Parts: sequence; C-alpha cells; structure tokens
Amino acid sequence: MIEPQIPKGFRDFLPQQMILRRNIMRTMSAIFEQYGFVPLDTPCLEYARTLEGKYGEEGDKLIYRFEDRGGRAVALRYDLTIPLARVAAMYQQLPKPFKRYQIAPVWRADKPQKGRFREFYQCDIDIIGSPGACADAELLLVAHAVLQALGFDNYLIRINNRKILNALAERLGIDSARIPDFLRALDKLDKAGPEAVLQEMQSAQLLSHDAQTIVRERLLGEGDNFEAVAALVADSETGAAGLRELELITRVLEADGVDVRYYQKDISLARGLDYYTGPIFEVVVREPRIGSILGGGRYDDLIGLFTRQSMPATGISFGLERLVTVMEELGMAGKTHSMTQVLVTQFSDELLAEGVKLAAQLRRAGLNTELYHAPDKLKKQMSYAAGRAIPAVVVLGPDEAREGRATLKNMLTGAQEVLAQQDLPAAIHKIFA
Amino acid sequence: MIEPQIPKGFRDFLPQQMILRRNIMRTMSAIFEQYGFVPLDTPCLEYARTLEGKYGEEGDKLIYRFEDRGGRAVALRYDLTIPLARVAAMYQQLPKPFKRYQIAPVWRADKPQKGRFREFYQCDIDIIGSPGACADAELLLVAHAVLQALGFDNYLIRINNRKILNALAERLGIDSARIPDFLRALDKLDKAGPEAVLQEMQSAQLLSHDAQTIVRERLLGEGDNFEAVAALVADSETGAAGLRELELITRVLEADGVDVRYYQKDISLARGLDYYTGPIFEVVVREPRIGSILGGGRYDDLIGLFTRQSMPATGISFGLERLVTVMEELGMAGKTHSMTQVLVTQFSDELLAEGVKLAAQLRRAGLNTELYHAPDKLKKQMSYAAGRAIPAVVVLGPDEAREGRATLKNMLTGAQEVLAQQDLPAAIHKIFA
Repeated sequence: MIEPQIPKGFRDFLPQQMILRRNIMRTMSAIFEQYGFVPLDTPCLEYARTLEGKYGEEGDKLIYRFEDRGGRAVALRYDLTIPLARVAAMYQQLPKPFKRYQIAPVWRADKPQKGRFREFYQCDIDIIGSPGACADAELLLVAHAVLQALGFDNYLIRINNRKILNALAERLGIDSARIPDFLRALDKLDKAGPEAVLQEMQSAQLLSHDAQTIVRERLLGEGDNFEAVAALVADSETGAAGLRELELITRVLEADGVDVRYYQKDISLARGLDYYTGPIFEVVVREPRIGSILGGGRYDDLIGLFTRQSMPATGISFGLERLVTVMEELGMAGKTHSMTQVLVTQFSDELLAEGVKLAAQLRRAGLNTELYHAPDKLKKQMSYAAGRAIPAVVVLGPDEAREGRATLKNMLTGAQEVLAQQDLPAAIHKIFA
Repeated sequence: MIEPQIPKGFRDFLPQQMILRRNIMRTMSAIFEQYGFVPLDTPCLEYARTLEGKYGEEGDKLIYRFEDRGGRAVALRYDLTIPLARVAAMYQQLPKPFKRYQIAPVWRADKPQKGRFREFYQCDIDIIGSPGACADAELLLVAHAVLQALGFDNYLIRINNRKILNALAERLGIDSARIPDFLRALDKLDKAGPEAVLQEMQSAQLLSHDAQTIVRERLLGEGDNFEAVAALVADSETGAAGLRELELITRVLEADGVDVRYYQKDISLARGLDYYTGPIFEVVVREPRIGSILGGGRYDDLIGLFTRQSMPATGISFGLERLVTVMEELGMAGKTHSMTQVLVTQFSDELLAEGVKLAAQLRRAGLNTELYHAPDKLKKQMSYAAGRAIPAVVVLGPDEAREGRATLKNMLTGAQEVLAQQDLPAAIHKIFA
C-alpha cells in the first residue's frame, strides 16, 4: 500500500473550495475580455536562466529550480511577468499594444507554513507597447471593475510612481546605485512602522543629516505626505514626469466614475521588485488586514533584458488565494450551492430508459441535471439531493412514467406536485426565480 | 542579454491559439456541470512514489521526476487519474458517488518531436463510488454532448469491456499473469494490423495451437467480431457480466437519443493502461486519422492501492491538443474573431475623459470595449481595429464630443453614421445580429 500523501506546501482543492475559485476566475476573465485583454498561456517550466536575477536576491532563492533529464537547469515559473517578458522578446511580431491576461499557478520554494503555499495562482493583465499612463490607468479600471463585480467594497487602490521616488532619492542625495536599498527600506513601512524604516535607512548610511530630517518630516510623517514630497520633486524632470503620470491616472479613474474613496496617491508605496520603472500600484483590503490582494506597475526595461531593445510594458497581478481568503472571512462567498439544479430518481432497471430521456429533456431546457447513478430507494436518493443542496428532485415512479408524468419536489420548501413531464422545466425554473 | 528561449517540448499559446483552446475548455466545463460534475483541482507536483508503478513500464520511464530541495523524490503529474485516486484515498469523507471534472496540464518526459509535447492538457471526468454501468454510460453521454457542442460529427465511440477480454483470455487458456501481455499485443491492432498482433502473441508464447485459430478467426477476422467473441465468453461468469454491462450502456445511449452511427461495441479495443477493470472506451475521429481524442474506462482497483479498500471508479479523458488539431484541420475553429467588439478612438488629452466615459457606457451595455491606448492619428487607430478584426469603431472627435454624439463605423461593411451617444449600444448590437 502507498500512503496517500501530498508534498508539503501543496494543496488539493475539493469542490467546496473549488467552486468559489472557479467563480472568481470566471468573473475575472469575463471582465478582462470586456476591456480587450486576450488570453495567453506560457508553459509551467522555463529555463532557470530566464528567471534568475529578476526578482532580487531573496526572490532568486525561492525559484523552484531543478535539473531535467538532460542536465539542463529548468525552473517552475515564479510569477507570470518574466515569462511574459520572455514571450514578448521571442515573438516580436505580436501587434502592439498587446493586451493579455493569464490566470495560472506559480511556484515558490518557500518554507511551507500556515497560509503560505508553494503553489498558488496569480491572475495577471499586462499591456505591452504602450508608454503612456493611460495604459496604467486602464489596469486600475479593470482592477476596480473586478473587485466591484466580486462584491468587494472596503478596499483602497494605492498609487505611486517610481519616478517620484527616484527623484526624491536624488533630492535626498542618495547615490543611484543605492536606490534599491532605499526602496526596500521604505517598502517595510506598513509592517515595521516609520521608526524602523528610518533606522534601516540610517544604518545603511543612506541619509545625510539634512536628508534624515526630510525623510522624518515629509516622507514618514503622520497622515498624507504625498503633496509634501511632490513639492520637493516638482522641479526635477523625472519627478515632474512622475507627477503628470499620476495626475493622468486619477483623471481617468474619475472620468470612469470610480469613487474617490477607492483610490489614493500614496508616497510611501514602494513595491519590492527591482524592475518597476514608473507608476506602481497595490490594492489593500481594509478589513480583514491581510496585506495586498493586488500589486503591479510599469516595467519598461524588463523586456529589454532579453532583446536589448526597450519596450514599454505595465501590468498588475491579483493573488487568487488572498481574494478567496478575504471573501470567505467576510462571508462574501455566499453559501456554496450545488451547481446541479435537478436530480431525477432511478428506481429500477425498467425505468432507466425513461429516466435517461427525462434527464436529457431537462438538460435541453437549460437545467443542470443529474440522473441518480443506480436504482435505489427513494430515501437514499432524497438524502443524496439534500446532502448536495440540489434544489429540485423529480421522482419518476412506474405509474408516473407510464402516464408521462412525474412528481416535482421543491427541496427548499418541501412542496411537491405531480406534473406532466413537458411542464417540468417551467416549474423547475420557477423554483430558482 | 539572456537569449529568450523555452525548454524543448514546451510551448507558448499566443492568443490566436489560445482563444480556440479557451472556447473548447468553456464548452466542456459547461457541459460537465450540466451533468452534475463538480470541479476539483490537484497540485501539479506529487510525491514520485504516488505515480510510480501505475502506468506500466513504459509509462514509468516517462514520469517527469526530480528531487526537491529537501531531497524528496517528487514528480509533475503524468495524468489526472492517479492524483484523483490519491485524493479519493486521502479524503474518504467525500460523499459518494462523487462526480468531478478537471481540465489541467500533465507532463511526460517524452522525446520532444513534431506534435508531441512534454506539457499538454487533459480534460477528465470521473465518477467515484458507483459500481454500475449506468455511471460508465453517463460518461459517454457527456463525451457525445461535448463533441456535438464543439461541432464534431464524424466520430466513433468504441466500447469494450476488460471483463470480456479477460474471459476470452481464460477461454484461450492464457495464464492470468500473462493477460497484460495479451492486451498489450491486441492494443496494437489499429497501428500494426492483425498479422503483427498474432505474431506478437505467438512469439510471446501466449497461444496454444487451438487458441491461434480462435484468435485468427474470431478476434482478428475481418469486419465486426464482437458477436463472435461474445458467443465464446457468454457462458463464463465474468464474460456474461461484461456483456450485460455493455448492453446496459448501449441502452442508455439509445434512450438519450444518441444515433447508432456514433458508437460501436468493438472487441479489439484493449486500451494500454494496466488499471482498467471493466468497460473501456475510446473515441476516434474518422477524418483526419489522428488516433483517439478520448480514452477511458472503469478502474475499480486503483483507489484500493492507496487504501486497501476497494472503491469503484470510472473516468474518461479528452486530449485537448488533439481536439484542437482536428478542429483546425477540419476548419471547425472558424475565423478566430477578436473578442473585442468596439474600439473607441482617442485623439487628444482633452478628449480623454469623454472617451473613458463613453467606453464605460458601452461596457455597461454589455459590449467588450477598448479605448485606444493613447492619443493618435485616426488612420493608425483604424488599422489597429482592422488588424484585430474589431467589428465596430466609435470615432469621437472634439465636435462630436461637445454635441454628445459620435461616428459609428461598421468595419465589416465600411458603413458609418453619426449617432447620439446613447443610441450607440443598440446600433452596435445590431452589427452582430
């Protein structure tokens, strides 16, 4: 006997978990397509060298790397962005702007622990070949539309721009080679608080005395620091460009009718990844505090790592598992109803053909219909329907079959009535209305 | 610079390939749900020991096996059936009968060659916990419904039963330990022809002199040999049970209204895998000759490998890539239309807000709508729409925006008219009607 086990950090999704996941994925892909994004799939395996060196030192360690039979270093994809950059480099004939979506698993060789898995799903949209902030804004419109469609309400789209942060770093006298350290420290603000961030910047010797004061008062001060920092960088070319981009993004959000309570310019948003070059985004749910459910931003230099030609690109990524967690915790998932709408009973071999015909007729009428799998007692079949929350049962006994009739039982109310078989679809549809 | 490459035997699916794949997967899952199957997902990685020893010697060699960082032997799943058996063993509380579907990639460490890939998709439905042939029949109803919905017509569902083949082997005096060799030889009939099959059986010393005659005349003779073999095994208990099961399956197909030209009992169908125990199935497309697009059967002893308790189960598996190949070769895929229905132009920063609002309005009216990504010349935007086969373009110039109007261009006919913005949705819907 083989012990039935699953590798650590991996999960099965039984139907009770899977139905919500499927509903989220369907809602997302419908909205992605509504905005003109087309599906694109990449394989799960990439050459390791394609992924390495893109996610920072910590990220590199988490790449799920191994050797294939031929001794080549391969890896399970770490995210959906680098494989897309590889695709954009390989197929340069793809017409631009190219707008794609992908919902697929990614892998991280992380320590398995509660809520942290080695296989999880990302849901990405990207626009390749459009340098303007209108493309970035569109990603946020889609994000907002998805969250609204899923029933979210208490969330905040945080918006910042690496150009503004770069201009700030310059203004603070930080050497351009040290900017990643500056951003990494700032990225910890939410979790560690302003004192810890300041201390990290100081111990890394990033800040002069004057710079410390500016950081403490303008960047890390209480409340909204965006305008204070904006004033500092407005006369730098990079900073002004970053500010104009954010202005355009908020104009688009406003024109689309997104309520101002859903988004905010936030100068403390840094995003961990090295490859962002322009607008960056994050969506946080205010309650429960679970961290971000979406992240992304512009990465104009990434595709150029493969082609040496610069190619503008921007993208966002939803974390499917986080969405599921929030929806379950807030009771937004609803009672997971059966997807089957009708069960047709089966009492004897003689009635089998009648049952098959009736089930086929109900399916043609658009009803998800199960024929009970074998002849059995009524009680057993009723308990099957009840256990799966199937809302309607059609009882087909020998007399009823002979007369072209059947008994419809409404499992929600307990009511039942004998009907002509051709009247069943309408009566069952009424149960759902 | 990193050369953008992909590991051998793997593929990217750009939108032109992906849209058909997505359409097939959506059609399938809708029909699976129509028959009461629920989604279930398993991780891509399993412990290697879970997979090994289930697929026969040849199969074992193709398992995509490697060591994880902790030195544990893991493997990418080889099919969707063994992981399901593992799931059924791990979660014995799952209510039975349990009907699941899964559409997901599997991996084989095969030699990459034309048309043979290391990553490909299987689309499976399984019923666990139902021993009767009614469950097997239902799988075929679903297969038929899927093929009809996809537009297939020229196919044959081949049906056989391992019980009949086992009874035949017994009748031929073949030792039960040698039955797998007998089935493996028979399985080659389609490709190698009757002489080669007979020769393989003889050189494996499976057949006595009398048995050779029976095999040549009854099993491998020209035309339909089912009845000839049925007569040989009808007095064996196993053989008779197998025949009864097939009789029930064909009764269900008939009751459902499946035309007889779509299915056939076929005594030469053996199926390669060792684990089948009862009815077995295959669907072949008559033109183009591409081999089977679906295979499956009953595997009552498989889950018991993990639990020591017998648990009846049956399943079928569509090969997504084969379906795609046939649909493309037969021109069934249709012209892959853009999923975007309308493009709204963008001419200037001043018109941006108007464009965003209009696009939002069209989306609310149920139209997949793109706003052109940046201000540009009309000609460029028209060629974007034409290149993507977007059927409608809404041209929004400054005068039109001021007057609450827009020009609708029908890209299929070239016709255009100026309309009030609120009349656009109805006019665009008319283009598709």
